[in-house]
Parts: sequence; C-alpha cells; structure tokens
Amino acid sequence: MTKIIDGKAVAKKVNDQTAEAVTELVAQGVQPGIAVIIVGEDPASQIYVRNKNRKALKLGMHSVVRQLPVTTTQEELLAIIAEYNADRSIHGILVQSPLPKQINEPLITRAIDPKKDVDGFHPENVGKLITNYPGHYPVANTPRGIMTMLKEYNVELAGKTAVVIGRSTIVGKPMAALLTNANATVTLAHSRTRHLKAVAKTADILVVATGITHLINGADIKPGATVIDVGMDRDENGKLTGDVDFDSAQDVAGLITPVPGGVGPMTIATLMQTTVELAKWSDAK
Amino acid sequence: MTKIIDGKAVAKKVNDQTAEAVTELVAQGVQPGIAVIIVGEDPASQIYVRNKNRKALKLGMHSVVRQLPVTTTQEELLAIIAEYNADRSIHGILVQSPLPKQINEPLITRAIDPKKDVDGFHPENVGKLITNYPGHYPVANTPRGIMTMLKEYNVELAGKTAVVIGRSTIVGKPMAALLTNANATVTLAHSRTRHLKAVAKTADILVVATGITHLINGADIKPGATVIDVGMDRDENGKLTGDVDFDSAQDVAGLITPVPGGVGPMTIATLMQTTVELAKWSDAK
Repeated sequence: MTKIIDGKAVAKKVNDQTAEAVTELVAQGVQPGIAVIIVGEDPASQIYVRNKNRKALKLGMHSVVRQLPVTTTQEELLAIIAEYNADRSIHGILVQSPLPKQINEPLITRAIDPKKDVDGFHPENVGKLITNYPGHYPVANTPRGIMTMLKEYNVELAGKTAVVIGRSTIVGKPMAALLTNANATVTLAHSRTRHLKAVAKTADILVVATGITHLINGADIKPGATVIDVGMDRDENGKLTGDVDFDSAQDVAGLITPVPGGVGPMTIATLMQTTVELAKWSDAK
Repeated sequence: MTKIIDGKAVAKKVNDQTAEAVTELVAQGVQPGIAVIIVGEDPASQIYVRNKNRKALKLGMHSVVRQLPVTTTQEELLAIIAEYNADRSIHGILVQSPLPKQINEPLITRAIDPKKDVDGFHPENVGKLITNYPGHYPVANTPRGIMTMLKEYNVELAGKTAVVIGRSTIVGKPMAALLTNANATVTLAHSRTRHLKAVAKTADILVVATGITHLINGADIKPGATVIDVGMDRDENGKLTGDVDFDSAQDVAGLITPVPGGVGPMTIATLMQTTVELAKWSDAK
C-alpha cells in the first residue's frame, strides 16, 4: 500500500526545532537574521518572498525584505549585497530568482559571503557539498529538505539506485550529490537523456525536478519505489500539480510526495533551519 | 573492430600545443611557472614529482620542486603555500598526495589560491565545474585529459549513457560533472553500488577509476562501448595494469585505453596545459 509523504507534518517538526533553536540563540544574545533581496515585481516571487518573511518573523527571527526596482543595475545590487555581507545582524542573504536581464546571476551568486549563502548556491559551498567536505556549510534547501523527509520516513539509501531527473544547480545537482554522499548509486538524467522513462523505472528512489507537468506516470515507476516530486506546475485548469501524475503513480510507488503538501513546505522550513545554523556558526556569536 | 586509444599520441599533441603557448607567453614577458610541494619521501610520489618537473622544464616553463621533511607541520605547510600564493612567478601550485597524518588535507586544498589551483581541487573550482559556471577556472587534470581523448577520438557524448565507477574528488566526481555538462546521462557508481557489473554494462562510455585490479572484464562491457581505464595497478608480477582486464575487454569494446599508455600520459600533459592557462588568465600578464 502506498504511503503518502506528509511534507507539511515534517515541515512543522523542522519549524518547531527551528523555533527552539532561535529561542536558545536569542538567550545567548544572537537573533538569527535573514535578508531577502528581490529585484522587480514578478508576482510568484513576490508571494515566495512574502511567505519567507512571514515564516521568519513567526519563528522569532530578524527578517529584512529589500524590494528593488526592476531597473536596478548590477553595481547597485552588488553594493547592497556588500552591505548585508558586512551587517552583523544578518546571517543569511538570499537574492530571489529570477533576476532581470541586465544582471549577471552567477556573479551575484558569488558576491554573497559563502558564510551567509543561505541558498547554498555559492560555488565554494557547492564544491564542499560535492567533495563531502568536513565541517559546516550551507546546502541548497530543496534537496536538503528532501533528505530530511527521506530520513523521517526511514527510506534506506545506501546501496540503492537513485535517479534524479533535472540537472539544475538549485535542485538536481545538489540532490545527486547528497544521495551519492549517502551511498546511493545515482543517475542524473535530464532533457537530453534518451529512454528517460526506462531510466526512471530503474529507480528505488526517484526525484523529479523538471517543471514538466506529469512527465512521469505510474507506468514509469518501479513498484515500491519512493517518488519525490519537486514540480510546482499548473494544470490546464490552473490548479497546482507536479511533474508526476499522482493518480497513476500512487498505485505503484511505495512512498510518494503529493503536490502541494510535499516538497514545497519543506523548502521554506529548511531555509529557516539553514538561516539559524548560519547564525549559530557565525563569528557574531 | 576495437580501436585502442593512443594516450601517448594525444598527450604529445597536447604537449606540442603547450610548448607553443609557452613560447607565446614568454614573448609577452610571462614564463608560466609551477610549484610542486612534496612532503615526505613516498617513492611513487617522488617519481611523479620528478616527472612533472622534467616535463615542465622541457616545455620551457619555470618549475620549482619544494621537498619538505615528513615531519613538516600544518602551519609550516600553510606558510609555504602562502608564499607561493604571493609569488608572481608561480601560476600553478600543486601539493602532492598523500600527505602525512598531522596535516589536514582538505584545509591544504582550500589554502591554495583558487586562481593557482592547478589540480582543480579547491571547493570553489569544483563548485564552478559542477554548476558549469561561465568563465575560466582549473578543472581536475585526469578527467579533463580523458575529455580531451574522447574529443580526439570523436566519441559522441550527448544523449549517451555514461557510467563512472569510483567517486573520488580527483577523478570520479569531476568526471561525472564533465560528462553531464557534455549532455551525457551519467551514473556515478562506487564501492557501495549493488549489481555493479550490470550497471557497467549499460554504459556507452565507461570510466573505471577504483584502483581495483581487473574489476571490470569483457563480460561487463556493452559491445561497442568506449572504455576508459584510470587504474594504475600492479599485477601479481609487479607489472603495471589497470582496473579493466584489457585482454577480455578489447574483444568487446569499440574503443579502449590501454594501461600503460592511455590515461597516464594525458594527466601530466593536461597538468602542464592547465599551468599555462593559469598563467594566461593571471593578472600577472
């Protein structure tokens, strides 16, 4: 019988731990602080940023939202990042994607102090994850949140076959690295992969992060597999749905995340968790 | 009919280009310089270092070998790295592995200026490779040399199935990243992989980097596959051999590297190529 992974419940558990950690840090004189910088008025981004801010405040954190006009230059944005890099009340800096065309996104990613890189996208932090570097560093929140869910549901990873579909810096590549570090055998599939559905069907753990509505359905899933759907797509009626056709998949999978209520709530909870960790690891303490 | 990849011939071609690039840079007043630091008297390391030095001098480069006693402390080694980081006559710094136990290897890797990180092991450079970051940065020489060989032999990668066995920072992980960036679908297998031989047999391009003598033989290879053997093992008679049983493999593979004469010569040629590139990219020019 398929079990549905309750992302909301796991996120609540993470948030409860985060709230506790914030209380402890505040007692030590450090209030974890996050700065979210948003350039332009993209409606989806506005909603994300509002939700992040609300959650941070609810957890007792210091939260700054810096709204910039769509005409902001690269130099202006770099100057604002430098400001937060130097600001001891801010432990995590996030620049909301997408950015307008006049701004070189990789350059911005690299301008954030790696110790305040709450998204874990700085090449130095990506490199540390890939090389399983000792010590503390931030890891991309969506894949890290997925690892938390897998652990919560006692999904065995060592020696298992994992397939990650999608090779983004935000999800696919760090997801593959985390699964490799956990001793799974990982195949990273993508838009150029041939026989994609046959590859998907080899997976004991299947993570789909493509943005293609219902790319994967029940026939592409190994019976009993754990299926993680990172999609946040809209169906023809405008309803939120995933990269996996949940209705057919849930008859085959052993464990599956729904959309909404699966990966989504975990990402924001993990972002908050990471911010608090950055505060804990910072010299400011 | 199986074709044998002639690593020596490709390495010669790379070296010829490197010698030309050195001549051009010298004419501009910059002599590319490499510093190799070796701690202790490990005999294999001594040979590698001597070969690197000889090759660098032969190509017209400035080459320094810094031999340190096995009792060198971490602080002493860090001070020497700082010295070469500041030395404008040195464009590439390499600390020979293995290091004695009193030295924290990841810390050393990170102490080298990323712009002089001729091995490409600094987390920032690894992160750039993984994220396919725009611009110039060094990439680990063994996998990069393999990419050069694959290109030289017109091996198609896009859409192909690649299996990399071994997940080291030096070979397996950067190899997987390079193949993913070239649009192959990559499976990264390792010591915890179940059904390893069956996984190997799915590969159109198979890269074996485990240090286990003859781990893979002809029966584990897809007919017509390209097989790259990174092993530098010794058989029971002390003869140099690979991770692939060449005799049985050559009847099945479409293309295969021998050991010796395959990957080995490419690694040192690529190291020299990278040093010259670092000189070209440096502010010193």
